[in-house]
Amino acid sequence: MSESFREISPADFFYRNRDLAGFNNPTRSMYSAIRELVENSLDACELYRIPPKIYVRLSYEENYEKRNVYRLKVADNGSGIPPEYIPSAFGQILYGSKYKLRQVRGTFGLGGKMAILYGQITTHSSAYIISSVGNNKIYEFEIRIDIQKNRPEILKKKFRSNRRKWHGTVVEFSLEGDYPKAMPKVLEYLRQTAMVNPYADITFVDPRGRLYMFEGVTKKMPKPPSEIEPHPYGCDVEIFMRMIDDSRSKSLQDFMTTHFHRVGKKTAKRFLKHVGISGRKNPKKLTPNEIVQLVQSMKPESFKYFLPPDANCLSPLSNELLEMGLQKDLNPEFVATEQRNPSAYSGYPFIVEIGIAYGGNTPNSPGITLYRFANKIPLLYDEASDVSRKVINNEINWNYYKVTQGTPVAVVVHICSTKVPYKTVGKEFIADRPEIEREIKNGINNVARRLSRYLSKKISIAYQKQRVNIFQKYLPKIAQFSTKLAGKKKIPNIEPLVRSMMHETKKT
Amino acid sequence: MSESFREISPADFFYRNRDLAGFNNPTRSMYSAIRELVENSLDACELYRIPPKIYVRLSYEENYEKRNVYRLKVADNGSGIPPEYIPSAFGQILYGSKYKLRQVRGTFGLGGKMAILYGQITTHSSAYIISSVGNNKIYEFEIRIDIQKNRPEILKKKFRSNRRKWHGTVVEFSLEGDYPKAMPKVLEYLRQTAMVNPYADITFVDPRGRLYMFEGVTKKMPKPPSEIEPHPYGCDVEIFMRMIDDSRSKSLQDFMTTHFHRVGKKTAKRFLKHVGISGRKNPKKLTPNEIVQLVQSMKPESFKYFLPPDANCLSPLSNELLEMGLQKDLNPEFVATEQRNPSAYSGYPFIVEIGIAYGGNTPNSPGITLYRFANKIPLLYDEASDVSRKVINNEINWNYYKVTQGTPVAVVVHICSTKVPYKTVGKEFIADRPEIEREIKNGINNVARRLSRYLSKKISIAYQKQRVNIFQKYLPKIAQFSTKLAGKKKIPNIEPLVRSMMHETKKT
Repeated sequence: MSESFREISPADFFYRNRDLAGFNNPTRSMYSAIRELVENSLDACELYRIPPKIYVRLSYEENYEKRNVYRLKVADNGSGIPPEYIPSAFGQILYGSKYKLRQVRGTFGLGGKMAILYGQITTHSSAYIISSVGNNKIYEFEIRIDIQKNRPEILKKKFRSNRRKWHGTVVEFSLEGDYPKAMPKVLEYLRQTAMVNPYADITFVDPRGRLYMFEGVTKKMPKPPSEIEPHPYGCDVEIFMRMIDDSRSKSLQDFMTTHFHRVGKKTAKRFLKHVGISGRKNPKKLTPNEIVQLVQSMKPESFKYFLPPDANCLSPLSNELLEMGLQKDLNPEFVATEQRNPSAYSGYPFIVEIGIAYGGNTPNSPGITLYRFANKIPLLYDEASDVSRKVINNEINWNYYKVTQGTPVAVVVHICSTKVPYKTVGKEFIADRPEIEREIKNGINNVARRLSRYLSKKISIAYQKQRVNIFQKYLPKIAQFSTKLAGKKKIPNIEPLVRSMMHETKKT
Repeated sequence: MSESFREISPADFFYRNRDLAGFNNPTRSMYSAIRELVENSLDACELYRIPPKIYVRLSYEENYEKRNVYRLKVADNGSGIPPEYIPSAFGQILYGSKYKLRQVRGTFGLGGKMAILYGQITTHSSAYIISSVGNNKIYEFEIRIDIQKNRPEILKKKFRSNRRKWHGTVVEFSLEGDYPKAMPKVLEYLRQTAMVNPYADITFVDPRGRLYMFEGVTKKMPKPPSEIEPHPYGCDVEIFMRMIDDSRSKSLQDFMTTHFHRVGKKTAKRFLKHVGISGRKNPKKLTPNEIVQLVQSMKPESFKYFLPPDANCLSPLSNELLEMGLQKDLNPEFVATEQRNPSAYSGYPFIVEIGIAYGGNTPNSPGITLYRFANKIPLLYDEASDVSRKVINNEINWNYYKVTQGTPVAVVVHICSTKVPYKTVGKEFIADRPEIEREIKNGINNVARRLSRYLSKKISIAYQKQRVNIFQKYLPKIAQFSTKLAGKKKIPNIEPLVRSMMHETKKT
């Protein structure tokens, strides 16, 4: 009565559970495929400060009369990929350049390959990759994924000369999908992506040949996110041991200062004193118990003198940009934005940016419209379980800010971090880490306060206008009457009085 | 300007992204660890029709003055694990016995290992596993996980004789956690688990030594779920090719009937005729295009004559059980349950079971209380994005069923399937596959209809009672008066009249 046990490869795992990565049905998969490749392209440009020019083409596959098979092509002008890495970068799950502490869109080393894998299992066709790092060669690969082995198979490989020193990557493959159903989300995704990446040119040609161009409104690139060492508050025994293995430090004091983010000589000394282990000790000689003791002590509850993570490695949107986006998109009557101060959750720095818009084309749907972004990616699915929706619905007293049912208000929340705490591999929504929740809440309260000031002013102005009108109507009569009564001839000039009142109104 | 690329092991992936598996903070991780191990234990018993006796003990780790490190022990009387499999079964991610088409609680071959991995990275301690399949040996292992290699390290291994022929598995390890915070969810989880597994004895001893016993109310075990072949509607090119590799069939006709679920000679013939490929063809000789053509045609849109998947492989709860659970739990004034007919989504059979309860201890929170179960697991997190919550909030006209704000109503939804479409590895909530959504909706409408009948009857009875009271009050006076008026002496007996009316009332 025994079970049969076996191992499966990561590719096999995500193939069997592709729902987890957002590839659950033809509609959703089409959206996910486009999205993942566009995000890889944006990363490939931004990390090298190249203003992204991204070309996305989706067309019907000729040799299928049933029109549910498409050909997807995504081309970018990014850094390109060295030939030796290309096959694995596109044909091997859990292989990539994203396993670092820095702000990038991709985080799982999964999305692009899942798109290709999905194309392969639905159309049994292989993927074409063309790339150059801008040297004198352009490489071209045809690959497929051996799912059970989780290895790329190279079907074709060739190169041609690259006189123009072009750099970038082109990915092309076939996949099953349902564009008519996927269209709204795909366009919304591209629209919002353009909104928060205003330095990017994105061109999309859809299967019916319609051309959508999202042109960058600025050429100014944000400084690329940089990589950082792990922060003590995010440390666990595993990281700690790996650091020790890789480290050349001879003393714990030196080890702490070289391998941890924002740990200087003083802090290191103070910390080691707090733990009670000599700074002169060789990290490689630490006993298991000492290691646990050290890691256990690297918690805010135990030692609160580590400096917070440095957010210089992050590249937020900035208020200007957020406002620009909202203006362009909703052209609202009132906008307020706020960039929160950098904060951190379990050792990962993050910045929350909030925007609020009122009136204009802001939809006055029941409840408040929410736009969610994480590391400059729009999040369009599973809003219901996102931390921002939770805050907006349960933690803000909107009546207090004069926002009631049907008031046309939209809120934008952008979270950038070296590690966005997504709840799913498909990057649909963000976990409610208390630190992040707090920042969102405070941010929304601040912009909402500014909105409420605007709204109450609007109300009082309306009231004053009305008041002045009444006076303008009756003062002349009163003047006339009282003149008669006083047996005078000349009616006094009431203009100054009225004017002063109008002035009053303006002041409020 | 080139990136550094690298591969990481699945263990490393889930270690870095443990949020995905429900191990995001000490509170949640404590809950997840207990839950995953209990579910493995239940599976280990149920698959062999052994009435589960599960013992869970959580205690403070002595040698830590800060009381955030715990020792977790979970023991079961299940089938046990052959010694050669033990190290990998607990020390290697994506290794297991769960990669089959049958209804089990575990599905990712991940949970148990994640618990041990989490314990290891937070306390740097190893895990102890004791197991026997009921032969004359009991094996004992001490292991740790090499996360970067995704391989178990065996630190100790020994065996002793097993005179009593005990079979089962004991897992014990240390982990960081926060029991005070985790307690409510842990107890709720065990309570609800007991509710849908009434043949299981679950004992829990918490760190303060409090004993919680959830005793089985029946010894009758459901028939264990059986394994099935893949259904054509769930097929893709990858599965198809793997089948061909493994198959010994010499003809396509034979291949279709032996390797697909519910495909008989007739259907196979009809299908191959529809595709236009000879049944005599050797499957190993199919061209890539033919394979795609075959798979593309295995869709309901293309060929609708495949029989629906057979749900005999599923083991639902049954109405009795569901009702028993609700009674025991809420002791409500009214209960209705419904087991929907078997249905299928993309080739996977599933059964939806619905229960509704009114009054008694049913909480009358704003909105309807929802209890969610999948393959006999209670789901306690992320209700907001679960398909059942979506249906209840957006697709049912509750007023129509006389259920308004504050009516104390609770709904139970249980979905069992050979593949529950979870949206997260942490098994928190279920994707809104249209087929499943429809079954839930119809089920809830049916039980709600029965509830509304009960409610309207309740109302009319109240009304009738009132009516009778009025008659009882005034009839005598009327009788008296009219007797006087008629100048008669003897007042007529009104009893029969009143009685008849009361009778009326009862009838309604």
